[in-house]
Amino acid sequence: MGNEKERLDRQFDFIREIDKEKFIGRQTYLSDGQRKENDAEHAWHMALMTILLSEYAEEKIDVLKTVTMLLIHDLVEIDAGDTYAYDEEGNKTKEKRERAAADRIYGLLPEDQGEKLRALWDEFEAWETPEAKFAHAMDNVQPLMLNAATDGKSWVEHGVCLTQVLGRNARTAEGSEGLWKYVRENFIWPNVEKGRLKK
Amino acid sequence: MGNEKERLDRQFDFIREIDKEKFIGRQTYLSDGQRKENDAEHAWHMALMTILLSEYAEEKIDVLKTVTMLLIHDLVEIDAGDTYAYDEEGNKTKEKRERAAADRIYGLLPEDQGEKLRALWDEFEAWETPEAKFAHAMDNVQPLMLNAATDGKSWVEHGVCLTQVLGRNARTAEGSEGLWKYVRENFIWPNVEKGRLKK
Repeated sequence: MGNEKERLDRQFDFIREIDKEKFIGRQTYLSDGQRKENDAEHAWHMALMTILLSEYAEEKIDVLKTVTMLLIHDLVEIDAGDTYAYDEEGNKTKEKRERAAADRIYGLLPEDQGEKLRALWDEFEAWETPEAKFAHAMDNVQPLMLNAATDGKSWVEHGVCLTQVLGRNARTAEGSEGLWKYVRENFIWPNVEKGRLKK
Repeated sequence: MGNEKERLDRQFDFIREIDKEKFIGRQTYLSDGQRKENDAEHAWHMALMTILLSEYAEEKIDVLKTVTMLLIHDLVEIDAGDTYAYDEEGNKTKEKRERAAADRIYGLLPEDQGEKLRALWDEFEAWETPEAKFAHAMDNVQPLMLNAATDGKSWVEHGVCLTQVLGRNARTAEGSEGLWKYVRENFIWPNVEKGRLKK
């Protein structure tokens, strides 16, 4: 089975390569307030959140598709690095850097699988389907939850304003109105009141 | 909606609690050979492996069910700690410690979801269904892949023998004969030949 060996070689080339996602740091502190999260941990957390919270999706979602989207959505950062949500300069070149990364990384896989995952990443980026909208909601809610759990540590360090958080979350309700309401009332407003998020 | 608020509170209690899985260290080195992996990173990696490798499953598997099983299967280690595969003493008390942990951690969730996830963890532990067999195969193959990628660093440090690895993998073929063959030929034997796994 020369073909199966070759296919497995490509699959494991990809599987080995994506180990590097564990080295991509984010700005969010973990719940102990000491170490910052990495992309793989973030993706794991959101995948489980999706399984638990899909009942609040604004439109019915395919859970496996959404989970897969979230498991892969940051792989491009292996080449392109993490761009902090409130880094204006970095966000200008983000798209171009990430597209080149997607070409290389998904290109490691057997063609059928590479195309499927690449299409799923494009779908996430296009932010149009119910799954993409819910995945973006998770991508916004998960760090809000951790920021609240650490008394806004990352917000305070970066001097983040409420308007920035609301801007970043302008479309969160498209994924889930119910979750966005919960998040505003439980994660955002209490931190505004305590001065951890600047008005 | 008092009920929805209460349900969301329980869901987010669980979601916050499981952040601690990111602090549970394993014995496997990441592909850079420097830092060791944690449980959340391990689960993320296996979830994606399942999506890519389910085509090799010995019996047809429900991919979302298997992915969910793998995303949660180590949560009990938040209380019970990681027990190294080749730690004989630790493995004697492992089951009891992990069952108590499952009671507490899955008990945080709304009852319907807690029961569902707990049943999935029990199914993983029972090792009988196609999904549980494939999930165990992933749980064995992923560290073999990383050990091979780091020239057997963890095996050398712990003086692990080939017979221990084969014993640990006695049932891997039940999940996937094809993957077990590939893993033997590409991850295990080359390291026996190079003396990194003791005969």
